[in-house]
Amino acid sequence: MKKAVMVFSGGIDSVCAAAHLSEQFDVYGISFLYGQRAGPEIESAKYFVDKIGMKQHHILDISFMESLYGKSNVLTDSKLSMPETFDYSIVVPVRNAIFLSISSAWAFSLGAELVAYGAHTGDTSYPDCRPVFTDAFENAMNLGESDGISSGIRRPIRIWSPYKEGISKSTLLKMGLDALGDDIFLTWSCYSGGDKQCGRCESCRNRKNAFNEAHIQDKTIYSTSSDF
Amino acid sequence: MKKAVMVFSGGIDSVCAAAHLSEQFDVYGISFLYGQRAGPEIESAKYFVDKIGMKQHHILDISFMESLYGKSNVLTDSKLSMPETFDYSIVVPVRNAIFLSISSAWAFSLGAELVAYGAHTGDTSYPDCRPVFTDAFENAMNLGESDGISSGIRRPIRIWSPYKEGISKSTLLKMGLDALGDDIFLTWSCYSGGDKQCGRCESCRNRKNAFNEAHIQDKTIYSTSSDF
Repeated sequence: MKKAVMVFSGGIDSVCAAAHLSEQFDVYGISFLYGQRAGPEIESAKYFVDKIGMKQHHILDISFMESLYGKSNVLTDSKLSMPETFDYSIVVPVRNAIFLSISSAWAFSLGAELVAYGAHTGDTSYPDCRPVFTDAFENAMNLGESDGISSGIRRPIRIWSPYKEGISKSTLLKMGLDALGDDIFLTWSCYSGGDKQCGRCESCRNRKNAFNEAHIQDKTIYSTSSDF
Repeated sequence: MKKAVMVFSGGIDSVCAAAHLSEQFDVYGISFLYGQRAGPEIESAKYFVDKIGMKQHHILDISFMESLYGKSNVLTDSKLSMPETFDYSIVVPVRNAIFLSISSAWAFSLGAELVAYGAHTGDTSYPDCRPVFTDAFENAMNLGESDGISSGIRRPIRIWSPYKEGISKSTLLKMGLDALGDDIFLTWSCYSGGDKQCGRCESCRNRKNAFNEAHIQDKTIYSTSSDF
């Protein structure tokens, strides 16, 4: 079977995308620890690695990123308050470039043909989720591995995301429900780090909206029961 | 003063390039630990951080790369023998892409305009040293940070190397000698991990050749005294 390396946070997007890909690929997952508040995401990642039947899974600690980004980022700094609507401060610069370069190195080593991440058409606010970035990054990776004159020693890769195929979050959740059933409600989306997902941060609100749009009854247990 | 983030191994190329850049930029250095044999390079890096007067220096541990590359790479696996001539097995796939993506993230956070690494015109065998890769990677980074429609929140970066300006290793060493004097002989190039540099591996041979071409008397102390 063909091989795909997947950036696998354990959030609902990457879980649904990995479940979809596993129908055509042996999936090799990478989860990154970088001091984000969302520890439960990693627990979710481990659960779904087995559920999806991944061939291998690595958890890589890149928490040194905190020392570079400093205090300016709410995903790595617990002292900053979590915004309820989109705010550029929650974007770690070129975070996906770091994830994808490490994943691409593994893909070249494995002879995998695909490097995947869970970006979808709702991620327009994140520049490193957009297909124009994905395509440019794919080009750079293949030039970085091929001598550009004759063919490279290792096979070229493609960088794939739902966004590149025009797949929205709600469509992605439907694909996830088809593949995994009610288990998808066990995925973690919340930016905050409580026992239950807050239901109020931008990520929780996007999750609720997507279930709504997909006409899927949301069985996620949130700490705030009220609708927004 | 303008800011530059530099991938700074402590090898002779990055030391000479950093010394050159420090005439025009405040330099912020990053050294990566990834299980390479060349521990003395990091000691050299620390020494030259002070000598060059860098504003900040981070040593980041990405030795998890060993678990991804496995046993196929002599730079991370001490059981494999060191080839004396160029061999593709010594190339960690897209290694510079990993270094440059992390460095670019830091550059965006700092508002630095340059991200530099020490590739020169002798590095033709390494695809991720060549300007065609550097340009493609620069394009990807800026698309990953800008929304691609309006301008990005953070300033765009340029990726710079001596190679992009057509600078050879011997020219680079002359620039280094001008800036640092005989201290450049304290830099570490050797792929092996002894007390002294072996003088025989590909990297030592390139170093000797470059001093020769530059008509600089090589005062490096090698463990093998004979010429090659």
